[in-house]
Amino acid sequence: MKLTTLSIAGTTTAAVGVGHGAFVPLDAPDLGALLAGSDWRQRVDVARASGAAPVRLDEDGVRIGPLVPRAGKVICCGLNYADHITEMGRDLPEYPTLFAKFADTLTGPADDIAVSASAQVDWEAELGVVVGRTLTDADETEAEAAIAGYTVANDISMRDWQRRTLQWFQGKAFDATTPVGPVMVTPEEVESTRFAGDGFTVRGYVNGDLVQEGRTRTLVFGPARLLSYISRFTTLRPGDLVLTGTPGGVGMGMEPPRFLRDGDVVATEIDGIGRLENRVRLT
Amino acid sequence: MKLTTLSIAGTTTAAVGVGHGAFVPLDAPDLGALLAGSDWRQRVDVARASGAAPVRLDEDGVRIGPLVPRAGKVICCGLNYADHITEMGRDLPEYPTLFAKFADTLTGPADDIAVSASAQVDWEAELGVVVGRTLTDADETEAEAAIAGYTVANDISMRDWQRRTLQWFQGKAFDATTPVGPVMVTPEEVESTRFAGDGFTVRGYVNGDLVQEGRTRTLVFGPARLLSYISRFTTLRPGDLVLTGTPGGVGMGMEPPRFLRDGDVVATEIDGIGRLENRVRLT
Repeated sequence: MKLTTLSIAGTTTAAVGVGHGAFVPLDAPDLGALLAGSDWRQRVDVARASGAAPVRLDEDGVRIGPLVPRAGKVICCGLNYADHITEMGRDLPEYPTLFAKFADTLTGPADDIAVSASAQVDWEAELGVVVGRTLTDADETEAEAAIAGYTVANDISMRDWQRRTLQWFQGKAFDATTPVGPVMVTPEEVESTRFAGDGFTVRGYVNGDLVQEGRTRTLVFGPARLLSYISRFTTLRPGDLVLTGTPGGVGMGMEPPRFLRDGDVVATEIDGIGRLENRVRLT
Repeated sequence: MKLTTLSIAGTTTAAVGVGHGAFVPLDAPDLGALLAGSDWRQRVDVARASGAAPVRLDEDGVRIGPLVPRAGKVICCGLNYADHITEMGRDLPEYPTLFAKFADTLTGPADDIAVSASAQVDWEAELGVVVGRTLTDADETEAEAAIAGYTVANDISMRDWQRRTLQWFQGKAFDATTPVGPVMVTPEEVESTRFAGDGFTVRGYVNGDLVQEGRTRTLVFGPARLLSYISRFTTLRPGDLVLTGTPGGVGMGMEPPRFLRDGDVVATEIDGIGRLENRVRLT
């Protein structure tokens, strides 16, 4: 199943996709709140069977909001694609490089990304993992079972701010700059569409040109391993979001470096999940 | 006034101190929720004048909970004491080094700090600043006016995890390891007790031995400047917490390095605000 958070006339609601840009609203204010109930799959099934009228994305006042607008934790992994690390001549890391964002950092899959005070806005196409169960000190099997689903994200990064100090956080936590969505796809749906296990292809585009392409089977720390590792120091809860890192091809790595200009369109897609398309506004 | 969050028989409530370990509960589930109402000062005044029976910390089932148990943002500054930076032979930084914690990282002023999986648990005594108003792109004057109050914190750090990668986050975000409190003291109260402006003295003790002592007037980035800087990239909201960095004297800097052992007691105090006393449990 494909789940998301809709914004309808300014109010958010969890919703389940029923195809062709139509969603049936669910009795929860957002996807994270839905996942906090252990019976969420049943509730979705009941709503789908109810015959309730779907909402369409082309209706006035309907948009897809940030997927998990009240996520308690958004944790990101850097330096995680083995092929890119090897290509850069580095050793594979023993531990994941982790940093945090806040829910305020997230934005919707079609929203403009407005940035002021940065001249080095860069892209990072990523697979996102939504947590479906509380996880503390979990092994990889438990962590795998706690994955509610997968989504698409772009960890848009303000490289000038990111490199002002040793800690990346300030360049990674600008409000409403990390698009996520458009939906969370549950694991069994992914298997049935042949993108089993870690085998997603993550692509990033700028103004229609392919700039990044990575296969998540080359992740040093795959989704379950990342969730397990994080759960050893902090509790993961339903609706928390973990971003798994970006493959090669970011603007900072180009010769000369390339950064986003006002009006540029960044697209991010993963086959079997969906596509983000966001216009950058430098204000 | 001195405000805090009490836990009474497992339920939290905001409360105002009325002296001698007694607090009058307020009609809000925690300090952050209280501060979210713009009339919080009036509500506190009404509660104090109501003659409601105070709760005492020595009653059964009463403890001070984490000061802001549902803080949306906890943002910390590293490398911020000018005297310590100069003494280490480094240049003063142009930008604050910032990293994030989550509300789950916080714990109460007298709670045990239980840590597993780290052999390098270290202390960092700090002044904390609680945000009282929503701040976006604020100058220092606005930021100063948005400070709800000051508190005491200890950014307990798992140095082995902190140094596994370039990003400190994982060593700084272990659940329930950052004690905060015991109260938030409002700015006018601090002035009246002669600790005006940035002139707090922050002290850290291990098993009764003074190991850290710093004066916040030597902060490179004082409270208002930090809040202003952060508000340029992310919105600060009532109940958010900003930790201002630690002076010299941490265990990692000793020759040889000294880390906390099971049963050690870490105390953290700021004159005019209060004292934390936490026993470390290595499990």
